[in-house]
Formats: sequence, structure tokens, C-alpha cells
Amino acid sequence: MPKLVDHDARRLEIVEATVRVIARAGFEGATMREVAAEGGFANGAIKPYFGSKAALLRATYEHVYDRTNDRVEAAADGAATPREALERFCREVLPLDAARVDEARVAVAFWGASESAPEARELHARFMDGWRERLGALLAALAPERDHRPAVEALLTFLLGAQITAALEPARAGAEQLEAQLRRLLDALLLG
Amino acid sequence: MPKLVDHDARRLEIVEATVRVIARAGFEGATMREVAAEGGFANGAIKPYFGSKAALLRATYEHVYDRTNDRVEAAADGAATPREALERFCREVLPLDAARVDEARVAVAFWGASESAPEARELHARFMDGWRERLGALLAALAPERDHRPAVEALLTFLLGAQITAALEPARAGAEQLEAQLRRLLDALLLG
Repeated sequence: MPKLVDHDARRLEIVEATVRVIARAGFEGATMREVAAEGGFANGAIKPYFGSKAALLRATYEHVYDRTNDRVEAAADGAATPREALERFCREVLPLDAARVDEARVAVAFWGASESAPEARELHARFMDGWRERLGALLAALAPERDHRPAVEALLTFLLGAQITAALEPARAGAEQLEAQLRRLLDALLLG
Repeated sequence: MPKLVDHDARRLEIVEATVRVIARAGFEGATMREVAAEGGFANGAIKPYFGSKAALLRATYEHVYDRTNDRVEAAADGAATPREALERFCREVLPLDAARVDEARVAVAFWGASESAPEARELHARFMDGWRERLGALLAALAPERDHRPAVEALLTFLLGAQITAALEPARAGAEQLEAQLRRLLDALLLG
């Protein structure tokens, strides 16, 4: 029986290989066989860790979400103003570099495959609720609005939409373009 | 050889059956066999019209886009002010009723399956460029901004993100909630 630490390390290796395969070949290309080849594992080495492609995709989505939140935590520390804190959160979620474009492709693949999968939808809803809470607190620190929910939802919806543009129209989702949209949107929401 | 009109009518029937199957069973559930059963066709009756699942999904996405634009055209006619014209466009794209939630599910399935499919990505980019042009004209009639692009892109990104929320978290994407977000966003963009 393998030690627990080996088990966790192997799971992480498999998930990281899945991110790379989805980024390169999309959801349809991300077969168990292809993921095993990418990670340098034997065929059949993945089944003991993830019993189905759906379970593997859920774990990969969870990994991407956790990685984003690790960045969010690290970035939040140095914010000088509430506006900067809000901007930093959004910038960590937006696909502003190659690694985060890979993550966007995982997210879009996951969403497309999850519409009829209750477990996957619950996972997504739980993650989004985490971000709603965070965005609500960041906006509350900034704008004396009575009901922040429409602004929180509009901002969250924008952050999700940006993943689609990054995955499907990368020429429209350069870092400069996304940052200009974010500034325009935050200026507007904080003034309007 | 069947008459051309029969050919087009049958294609439309197949595509409409595909919308229903994706809405009910997601992309993975939308097999050729399932679509044939839904439309009341013989197994194998779809292949002469759509040679692959990818071709069928592209045609279904195109159908959804065309149907949205038909609604947009009809709604645009009666707008009393430029603000109302802009709102009407956005309202026709947002998934505000059951039929449009089905369309959102088709869109999300299509995006998830299209990341690595150049033909599908081109189709999407062409459609989005159509909406960029329209949104640009609507915003130009409203706001004396020098460069409308960040606002156009932010609004388009919001409209795409709303399809994800409707498909995956329907409890968060009721018509009232989406309309409140839209109003908040348009108020903000037009003032800010």
C-alpha cells in the first residue's frame, strides 16, 4: 500500500498533466490514455486515482480554482486601497498570462461537460459562492450602495465570460484588452 | 433525390431536436442516436445531413445565433430611445425565459467542445464580431466616449458569462436577477 504522501503527490501530477492536455487538445482530446501519456504514467495508472473522466475533470477544475485562490490570497496582502484590493482579485481571476489561459480552457471544458452533471454543478456553485462572498466584501468596503448583489453578480458574470473569450478568441483577450475592460467596468460600477 | 425544400426542412428538424437533447442531457448525452430518437427519425437518418457530431453542433449553434438575431431585429423596431434599443438588444441575448435557457445550454456545450476546433472557433469569432459591431453602434448613439471598445467588450463578456450562470446555476440566473444586473451595468457604463 503506497504512503499517503505518495498518493497525494501522484494525484497532483495527474491533475497537472490533465491541465496541459486540455490546454493543448481540448476536452475531447483529454482521454485517460492521453493524460497518462502526458504524465509519463502507464496506461491504467490513472483509474485507481480517478475512476472516471468526469471525476478527473472535477478534480482538475478544483485544482484550477484552488490555484487561483492561492494567487488571490498572495495578491490581497499588499493592496494599499480597497479599490486596489478589488482590482487585484479580478486580475488574478482574469486570464492575463499563458498559465491562466490554460486554466480558462479547463474551466470552459468543465462547464461544457457539466450542464447535466449534478455533482459538477454543485462544485461550481460552491466555488462561485466563495467568490460572491469575497467580491461582496470588497465592494462593500468601497461603495456605499444599499444592495451590492447586482454589482457583485455583474462583475462575477464578466469574469466568467472572459474565460470564454480567452479560450475561443485569444486575439480578443490579450492582457491589455482585458485590463482595459476591467478598468472601464470598475470605474463605471464604482461611480454609477 | 429529395427536393431542396425537403432537405432544408429536415435539416431544421434535426437541429431543433439537437437543441432539445442538449437542453435535457448535455453535450455528452447528445449522441447522433439520441438526436434521431428525439426527432423521430430512423437511426442513420442524420448522417446524410451532418457527417459528424461536430458538424451537427456547429449547425445547432448557428441556429441558436440566428434565432437570437431574429428576436433582436424584431425587438429593435419599437425602441423609443437609444438606451431602450441597447437594453432590448441585451435582453434578447440574455437567457430570460425557458427557450433561451435551452439556447444558453447549447452555447455552453458548444464552447466547451470547441476550444481545439478551428472551424468552430472561427464561427464563434464571426458571430461575436457581428455583435461587437451592433453593440458599438448602439453605444455610440448613447455615450460621447472617444473609444467605445472597452465598454463594448465588457458588455459582450457579461452577456457570454450570463449563459454560463444560466446553464450551471439556474437559481442565480432568474430573469429578475439578470435584468437587475443588466440595469446596474448599463447605468454604470452610461454614467461612468
